[in-house]
Amino acid sequence: MELRENRKKVNSWLKNFLSSQEIEREEVEEVFDEIPDFLLRGGKRVRPALFFEGYKIGDGERLEECGKASISIELCHNFFLIHDDIMDRDKLRRGGKTLHKAYEEKFDAWTSISLAINTGDYTNALSFESILDTNFSTDKKLKVIEEFVEMRKKVFEGQCLDLILHETPLSDVRVKDVLDLHRLKTADYTISRPLKMGFSLSPKSGGPDSEKTVEKLETYGRKIGTAFQIKDDLLGLFGKEEETGKPVTSDIEEGKRTLPLVIAYRRGTESQKEKMKSIVGSKPSENEFKTIREIIRKTGAKRKGEEMAEEMVEEGKRAVGGIESDSLVDLANFIIERSY
Amino acid sequence: MELRENRKKVNSWLKNFLSSQEIEREEVEEVFDEIPDFLLRGGKRVRPALFFEGYKIGDGERLEECGKASISIELCHNFFLIHDDIMDRDKLRRGGKTLHKAYEEKFDAWTSISLAINTGDYTNALSFESILDTNFSTDKKLKVIEEFVEMRKKVFEGQCLDLILHETPLSDVRVKDVLDLHRLKTADYTISRPLKMGFSLSPKSGGPDSEKTVEKLETYGRKIGTAFQIKDDLLGLFGKEEETGKPVTSDIEEGKRTLPLVIAYRRGTESQKEKMKSIVGSKPSENEFKTIREIIRKTGAKRKGEEMAEEMVEEGKRAVGGIESDSLVDLANFIIERSY
Repeated sequence: MELRENRKKVNSWLKNFLSSQEIEREEVEEVFDEIPDFLLRGGKRVRPALFFEGYKIGDGERLEECGKASISIELCHNFFLIHDDIMDRDKLRRGGKTLHKAYEEKFDAWTSISLAINTGDYTNALSFESILDTNFSTDKKLKVIEEFVEMRKKVFEGQCLDLILHETPLSDVRVKDVLDLHRLKTADYTISRPLKMGFSLSPKSGGPDSEKTVEKLETYGRKIGTAFQIKDDLLGLFGKEEETGKPVTSDIEEGKRTLPLVIAYRRGTESQKEKMKSIVGSKPSENEFKTIREIIRKTGAKRKGEEMAEEMVEEGKRAVGGIESDSLVDLANFIIERSY
Repeated sequence: MELRENRKKVNSWLKNFLSSQEIEREEVEEVFDEIPDFLLRGGKRVRPALFFEGYKIGDGERLEECGKASISIELCHNFFLIHDDIMDRDKLRRGGKTLHKAYEEKFDAWTSISLAINTGDYTNALSFESILDTNFSTDKKLKVIEEFVEMRKKVFEGQCLDLILHETPLSDVRVKDVLDLHRLKTADYTISRPLKMGFSLSPKSGGPDSEKTVEKLETYGRKIGTAFQIKDDLLGLFGKEEETGKPVTSDIEEGKRTLPLVIAYRRGTESQKEKMKSIVGSKPSENEFKTIREIIRKTGAKRKGEEMAEEMVEEGKRAVGGIESDSLVDLANFIIERSY
C-alpha cells in the first residue's frame, strides 16, 4: 500500500474539511483550533487507506469522492484517541501533547479534561458529517452510517473490557481476555470496518458476491487487526520512543494488560510473578523496566507474541486469497515489519 | 401536551430498544445494565414529545414508527447528561446517582469516570441506531441524521462556552454571554431540533411550505428553549429539591454563570458584589445561600429573569401563530408554570 502517498492526500482532505467548519463564538475558536493541530500532527492514516481499498475492491471509480468519505474513519479514530488519552491519563501522542494536556496551557486541569471530552464528542459528530457531505446516493451513505454506528458499539465493549481488565489482578487475566480485548477494541474499527465501509460505497456492494466479499474482509480484519494490536503491545515495550512517539515505559506505568505481559505472567516463576506484580502499575525505574523486559524475553512471551501475530497475519492473508488486492497483502506484511 | 401519557409510551419504546441490545462479554453487561436504570428513572421526555409534535405538524400518520424514531433525541439527551454530569462533577440526577457515581459502587473513582465517558459515547451511538432501525425511507432517515449531527455541533459550542464562562470572573460575564450559552447549549437541542427532526420525517417535509414551517419552528425553539433554560436557572436557585431532583445549592457551589446570578451581580452594590464573589464557587452554608437568594431578589434579578422568560415565551407563541398545534402553546405555558 502506498501509505505515504495516501497520507498526504488524506491530510489535505482533512485540512479542507476542518477549515470549512464555522464557529460562532471567538472563545470557542481557541478550543477548536487545537483540533487540526492534533489531527494533522502525525498518524499513519491506515484506516482511510483501507476505506479506500475496500472501495476499489468493489470496483469503485469515484476516487476523489471516496477520499472525502474516507476521512470519516480518521475523524472517528481521533475521537476515540481523544477520549482514550483522557481515560489512560496519557500525556503524549504522536510526539506532541495529548489534547487534554494541550488545553492545560490555557485552562486548569479539570476544565481541560472537560473540554477534551467535549471536543471528542464534536470530532465524533464531524466524522458523520464528512460522510453526509459527499454526493454518493442516499442508500449508500445510509449503509456506511449503519456500519459506522455498529463499529462504535464494538469499541464501547472493547473500551469497557479494557477498563475492567485494568482493575483485574494480573493473575486473573487470561490470554483469551486480551485477545477478545484486541478484537473488540481495535481489530474491528482499525481494519475490517474501514474496508467494509469503503466497500459499501462501491458499485459491487449489494451485488451477487457482495456478502461473500464482506465476510472475507471481516475475517481478514479480525486476524490482521488483532495482530496489529499485538504488534502495538510489543512495540510499546520494545519499540523506540522516537519512532512510536510515546514513552516506552508508559504501558507498564499504566498497568496495561498487554499480551506479552499476560503470557509472561502465566509462564513466570513465583519470583518473576512477584516482581511483575510489584512493578506493573507505577512508574518503573530504569532497572525495573529492564527487569520486566527480561522476564518477558526469558519466559518466551515476546517470541510467543510475535509468533501469534505472524500466524494471524498468515490466516488473514489466506482469508482474502480470492480477492485481488496487493494492498491487503502489503498491509499484512507491513504490520509484521513495522517499527512505529 | 399530554406529557404524562406520552412519557409512558416513550419509556416503553426506550425499554424495548435497550433490551434488544446484545453484549458479548459478561463484565460489560454490568456496565451496560446501569444505562436502562439511569434512563428510565425519570425525566420529562419533553424532547420526544416535541419530535412527535413536529411529525404531526407535517401531517405524519405513522405514529408508532415515529415514536420509535423519537427516542433518538432522548438517547442523545442522556448521552449529553452523562458527559455533562462528569464535567460538572454532579452527584445526583433525577433523584438518583449520576452515572459515574453509580459506577463507583463497583469501581474506583477514575475508572467510574472513564466508564461513564465510554457509556455516554455508546448511548450516542444508540441514538443514531434508533433512527436507522425504523422503516422510514432512506431519504427521510438521512435528513433526520443530518439535523441530528448539526445539533451536536451547536451543543459542542454551547458546552465549550459554558466551560469557558465558568472560568471567567463573574464581573466579566455579560447577559448576552448567558443568553448565547442558553441558545447554543439548550434551546436548539431541547426544542427546535426535536420539532424539526420530527417534521423531517413527515409527508409535508420538502413540500411547498416546508421551509417556512421549519423557520417558524426554529424561531419558536430559540425563544422557548432559552426561556426553558432561564426557568431552569431560576428553579435551580428557588425550586424545591424534591421536585427538581437536584440539590438546590448545587448551581452556586459549582459556580454556574446563571442568568439571575449574572443580572444580580451587574445590578448589585459593591458590598453585594463582594459577597457574591466570596460565596459563588464553593459549598455555601445555609446562611450564605440565603444571602445569595436575598441579593438576587433584592436587586430585582429574579423578577427580571422571570420577565425575560415570559417575554420570550410570548414571542415564541407568536412565531408559530399560523401553525395549528395546541401542544406548542401548551408547552410554552408549561415552561412558565413548571416547578420541576
